[in-house]
Amino acid sequence: MRVATRMSASIPDDLRDLVDRPLFAALGTIRPDNTVQVNPMWFDYDGEHLTFTHTTYRAKYRNLQNNPSMSLLITDPDDPLRFVELRGALARVEPDPEGAFYVHLGRRYGNADQSPPPDAADRVILYMRIDRVAHH
Amino acid sequence: MRVATRMSASIPDDLRDLVDRPLFAALGTIRPDNTVQVNPMWFDYDGEHLTFTHTTYRAKYRNLQNNPSMSLLITDPDDPLRFVELRGALARVEPDPEGAFYVHLGRRYGNADQSPPPDAADRVILYMRIDRVAHH
Repeated sequence: MRVATRMSASIPDDLRDLVDRPLFAALGTIRPDNTVQVNPMWFDYDGEHLTFTHTTYRAKYRNLQNNPSMSLLITDPDDPLRFVELRGALARVEPDPEGAFYVHLGRRYGNADQSPPPDAADRVILYMRIDRVAHH
Repeated sequence: MRVATRMSASIPDDLRDLVDRPLFAALGTIRPDNTVQVNPMWFDYDGEHLTFTHTTYRAKYRNLQNNPSMSLLITDPDDPLRFVELRGALARVEPDPEGAFYVHLGRRYGNADQSPPPDAADRVILYMRIDRVAHH
């Protein structure tokens, strides 16, 4: 693949659908031993931050405590040349002890009957700040 | 998304199709300032290494000279819960001055008439060693 990548400070209007649609995205984080990790993630976008549901005892959370850098690649499944890579960092973490945000995301991703997860007590919402946007 | 991730030393047989199919994958690398980068990539798999076409003057190449860590997430577009994350590192770089490997990948990804790229003289093949496999 040979795609000229452009950089922007914000999400271009013609790619905004990629954050509005319930797509599976690829989140990059850095492990404490300075190796890279990429995980499939549900996400939402509130117009300023990308938001994720997570638990406090998983590897990604430990990664982010050590290095707050995050990068999310979202690709259009109908046209893989349409993509955005959102680069930024963890801005804040909020508790989600009832799993309400988890339920919100589950519904966004098509499960109308989403119930809170069994690990709700450990659930948190990760807010990711967007610093730069790379796109086609 | 709440998916129990399992770790293996090699690609599970029931997910082998994910490396055999010409899917767009998400490659994570680490920038010299210790921030993370995730790019959409064409790839191939020779049974041992993942292979990528690249040029020597791009950011990812500079990233890998500084930190050889690589992680490739491949997701089944027909079922996003089927995925593999292949963790490893750059094993070696080979020149591809005629762009022959680029042409091979272009054909793999459906362009029967793929011609060498204009930047063929700077093309290289990246060989990625696989150390661990995370999967659903």
